[in-house]
Amino acid sequence: MKTKPAIPKGTRDFMPVETAKRNYIFNTINDVFHLFGFQEIETPAMENLSTLMGKYGEEGDKLLFKILNSGDFTSKADKSLWESGDTTRLAAQLCEKGLRYDLTVPFARFVVMHRNEITFPFKRCQIQPVWRADRPQKGRYREFYQCDADIIGSDSLMNETELILMIDEVFARLGIRVAIKMNNRKILSGIAETIGYPDKLTDITVAIDKFDKIGLDNVNAELSSKGVDDNAIAMLRPIITLQGDNDGKLATLRKTLAASETGMKGIEELETILGLVGKDNLRATLDIDLTLARGLNYYTGAIFEVKAADVAIGSITGGGRYDNLTGVFGMDGVSGVGISFGADRIYDVLNQLDLYPEQSLRTTRIMFVNFGEKEMKAAMGYAAGLRNAGISTELYPECAKMKKQMGYADAKGIPFVAIVGENELASGTITLKDMASGEQKQVTIDELTEIIK
Amino acid sequence: MKTKPAIPKGTRDFMPVETAKRNYIFNTINDVFHLFGFQEIETPAMENLSTLMGKYGEEGDKLLFKILNSGDFTSKADKSLWESGDTTRLAAQLCEKGLRYDLTVPFARFVVMHRNEITFPFKRCQIQPVWRADRPQKGRYREFYQCDADIIGSDSLMNETELILMIDEVFARLGIRVAIKMNNRKILSGIAETIGYPDKLTDITVAIDKFDKIGLDNVNAELSSKGVDDNAIAMLRPIITLQGDNDGKLATLRKTLAASETGMKGIEELETILGLVGKDNLRATLDIDLTLARGLNYYTGAIFEVKAADVAIGSITGGGRYDNLTGVFGMDGVSGVGISFGADRIYDVLNQLDLYPEQSLRTTRIMFVNFGEKEMKAAMGYAAGLRNAGISTELYPECAKMKKQMGYADAKGIPFVAIVGENELASGTITLKDMASGEQKQVTIDELTEIIK
Repeated sequence: MKTKPAIPKGTRDFMPVETAKRNYIFNTINDVFHLFGFQEIETPAMENLSTLMGKYGEEGDKLLFKILNSGDFTSKADKSLWESGDTTRLAAQLCEKGLRYDLTVPFARFVVMHRNEITFPFKRCQIQPVWRADRPQKGRYREFYQCDADIIGSDSLMNETELILMIDEVFARLGIRVAIKMNNRKILSGIAETIGYPDKLTDITVAIDKFDKIGLDNVNAELSSKGVDDNAIAMLRPIITLQGDNDGKLATLRKTLAASETGMKGIEELETILGLVGKDNLRATLDIDLTLARGLNYYTGAIFEVKAADVAIGSITGGGRYDNLTGVFGMDGVSGVGISFGADRIYDVLNQLDLYPEQSLRTTRIMFVNFGEKEMKAAMGYAAGLRNAGISTELYPECAKMKKQMGYADAKGIPFVAIVGENELASGTITLKDMASGEQKQVTIDELTEIIK
Repeated sequence: MKTKPAIPKGTRDFMPVETAKRNYIFNTINDVFHLFGFQEIETPAMENLSTLMGKYGEEGDKLLFKILNSGDFTSKADKSLWESGDTTRLAAQLCEKGLRYDLTVPFARFVVMHRNEITFPFKRCQIQPVWRADRPQKGRYREFYQCDADIIGSDSLMNETELILMIDEVFARLGIRVAIKMNNRKILSGIAETIGYPDKLTDITVAIDKFDKIGLDNVNAELSSKGVDDNAIAMLRPIITLQGDNDGKLATLRKTLAASETGMKGIEELETILGLVGKDNLRATLDIDLTLARGLNYYTGAIFEVKAADVAIGSITGGGRYDNLTGVFGMDGVSGVGISFGADRIYDVLNQLDLYPEQSLRTTRIMFVNFGEKEMKAAMGYAAGLRNAGISTELYPECAKMKKQMGYADAKGIPFVAIVGENELASGTITLKDMASGEQKQVTIDELTEIIK
């Protein structure tokens, strides 16, 4: 009955060093969330499929992990669906529950269920894994964490501003230089209106988005193929090729979108946010980027995205303002704005730049070599004192060969080893070995505590 | 398309205060794990069913949450199993993956898969949720956390000793007075041997275990009904009614079990552990308890259990020594000893005794009232300074009525409110309101920082 061990594709084990690094990221993000007054909630891994289905499009429904009903799961199911090959409906009869696909739909469900316990505006944060039956590939997993913060029940642009400050603080703490890109759905709508194609908002946005990669001529060809006329394409040109600082961009936009009420409202929102953030208050750069459109159909106002300055990788954080979060659950009028940190990509960035502070790895600081029972009694006394001082301390559990014990300390990356043998017992001292330099010296327990603290 | 929102039975949402309390428990346990040199790992929520099935008995197999295969899940399944009602085999064909049921089997699988990356002895800790399709009832959930620490690859009784010290440290930090109960499987075997029924170990243990509840006569009746003869029952009497301190109990056991080599080995192990722990080194009490038998078939040496002294609730932590953790995955000879903290019960105990330190709730320390744009600009400057000093700070996002803003601070339990209105702007001061006392005073930002820090 030996089973060859493996884990499901697209999932991961995390070794101690990886877990410590990941926790460092989660803790940094969580600390900043709390610093800004966000409160953490948790929701169950399993949600009712009635909560999840239909919220992520037809493709999303297929990517939900569904949980087979317990007991006699066939009793409520129609066998003819098997025969007719209608696995979608059959799955819905065999399964009542599924694993959460993101943190947003569970949050909406949470807000509606607990509306009477919640004080609005509600600043909630949530750091939990989500599951998607996507085809696994490099950097895409079937289980991964999302780190979300949202403010709901307030239309104030103060919220957008606070989120930008919070993004800045997180990446400053992590030591990652970033560019925060900002756009506004209303501006994109204004552009489509102004050039006479309000109904082609998505086509226009998708095309503009490719400017960096394919150049102006190809963007124009794409626009043309989507039925945008030459006159409109000419009007788009100054917007697509918009360069310079935020003030310059805003000036151009104000001229170009003057006739669009929606567009002007979007410009005003951008200006207000930039004004509230202020000049020189960020360590990140904050740039208006009209090609930014993430989840366009979802966002109604500000749209954010963050890119690492020193590593070529996709967006490491994103978000924006949305309307009617909870409408699908029968509670209208809840708008909000939120951001989501991409922990897996942040992990890759930190690894590439080797930015983990030493203490984030949480290794044992000191190990006592085991020379036998009598010596261990003394070592245990010392260890108790060190632990009281908050110093992570180990006692090698067996009286093994010195080489084996030192090899263990070395493999585990323990920086100091303490030797309490017969001589040390007699003199009441400890021989302290610095594993990096190989240096040894005889010290008292107080001296030792000072050195390794 | 409105869905009435609900969550699957046996699962829970955690509101901000509950989440903060739970994180306080997890962080306390995790900090102590690290203090003692344990290293955290994480494993995926989903494991292959081939890893999980057959590891928890027939009943356990039924309690596994199974995940329906993606795509055309019927293609690999035999429809005749539906017709014949063999849902167990059908489930195995419809599902390849399941949610983890505990942290032990995934840990064993992890060790075998990563044997070449691990340095032994391996001190691993893991704090993650597990899922069981148990019938939900008070205090029993379908999703709950386990907090495990194990040392594998070392037979030394130092490990048992360290686990006891670690239990003591965790509960001291949490402020919960506890009794640590200790037994040894070898002593239980020695007892069964000594009275002539080595094959009735389980029956005897189960009966002895009830002594506190049903009394000696009923225990003896049960033993008799299981076929234990009167002579043997008489021999058991001094063991069942064993009272007094650990030294006294050991003395009695040494006499009673003198003829059993296994029993004497168990006594020796208990003595060694008690000797290594030492007198007066624990804040908890540490008592030999011969009725303790948790998961008897699993444990081979020490058995631990922890009870809260001031709350009537079941065991809040348990563990013991086991052999051959990884044998089922084809890797023999890995023995270990481990403990598992019951976070949900610890949560109940802390709630009953109201032992959460104020800072564990992680509420915002101070909120700035919003009087409009100009005032907010100043407040944002102050907030930036406070956040730099590590003080959790909020700005109310809307220029709402004072009463609404104060109500928000009150509901969220924010202890201080800062007022920066026209007068304060003019004088460069802040009016600080202590929400508990209602007291208000005019202060500078430096004074404010000192007060609320």
